[in-house]
Amino acid sequence: MGKGDITREKILDAATSEFAEFGLSGARVESIAKAIGMSKNHIYIHFGSKEALFTAVLEHNLGRIHSEVPLTAEDLPGYCGALFDFAMANPEIMRLKGWYALEGRDIELGSFINHWEQKADELAKAGVPGSFPADFLMKVIPTMASAWTIINPFGPPPTALPATKVAAIRQGVIEMIMMLTGAK
Amino acid sequence: MGKGDITREKILDAATSEFAEFGLSGARVESIAKAIGMSKNHIYIHFGSKEALFTAVLEHNLGRIHSEVPLTAEDLPGYCGALFDFAMANPEIMRLKGWYALEGRDIELGSFINHWEQKADELAKAGVPGSFPADFLMKVIPTMASAWTIINPFGPPPTALPATKVAAIRQGVIEMIMMLTGAK
Repeated sequence: MGKGDITREKILDAATSEFAEFGLSGARVESIAKAIGMSKNHIYIHFGSKEALFTAVLEHNLGRIHSEVPLTAEDLPGYCGALFDFAMANPEIMRLKGWYALEGRDIELGSFINHWEQKADELAKAGVPGSFPADFLMKVIPTMASAWTIINPFGPPPTALPATKVAAIRQGVIEMIMMLTGAK
Repeated sequence: MGKGDITREKILDAATSEFAEFGLSGARVESIAKAIGMSKNHIYIHFGSKEALFTAVLEHNLGRIHSEVPLTAEDLPGYCGALFDFAMANPEIMRLKGWYALEGRDIELGSFINHWEQKADELAKAGVPGSFPADFLMKVIPTMASAWTIINPFGPPPTALPATKVAAIRQGVIEMIMMLTGAK
């Protein structure tokens, strides 16, 4: 990695924390600069604007859910369990997804945006067990896998769950997907 | 309603649109004032601060999901269908719930905050059909009922669904809850 790349990486890391916490409107480029001992100007030279930096942060982070948790069409309960683990382990990425849904209307991401649709197509081609269609399941699985994270405003709040409770919830979610796909 | 109440109502309506669209950080009191031909100062006299106005907007709106869709413990699939209709018909309230999850950490709402927990308790007392515990179901039901709204960043995006598709999804969600509660 060249020096420019290292600088870029350092900015992206600090920007990830700031945007995950405060979103596009609430984040301050000045806070990002301060966190890594850089000038605001330096950040603008690398990324152009706050919006462009936010977009870069989204591109940098949101694809991880797809690259780190590949779809296993032949084992949907297992896929859901892996997504659950990813969601619980990555609160910043969950928050970025939440901000993107609320603030990202005018932001064009690269290839990322159609990943879920691609997965629904892939699943439809592979053939879906049970009576629910592929695009329905591809909405249910990631939604339920992330339902106990901070960005889901429905149901009892997910604060301070002990590990045994998390394990029981994970098992419940997996059993649910087994039921829906006729695996049980 | 006195003149003060009418003014308050008018401010709350305009503030609801602005906060639903832009959130706490992104909303501008000036835009709210302009929308109703009032001075910013007038709004501050009534509500004190942007944060206090946001809190008032949340109190004014978020409770509606509970008052307008009462829990029917004896008919959970029907409850889920009613929640689905409410969620699809009230995108502003959905967005406010999304912002509240991301930006509301320091905001104390009145009685609202424990409604889901209260419902989980109510359900546990009523006895839950099937093998999933009451607090699990009380997470699954509202989460799935709102999964096709704009604030859910998981799965294929919910844009521009034709009415027949929405009806099919609604039926799918209801069947899912029937399955989970052993009603089918």
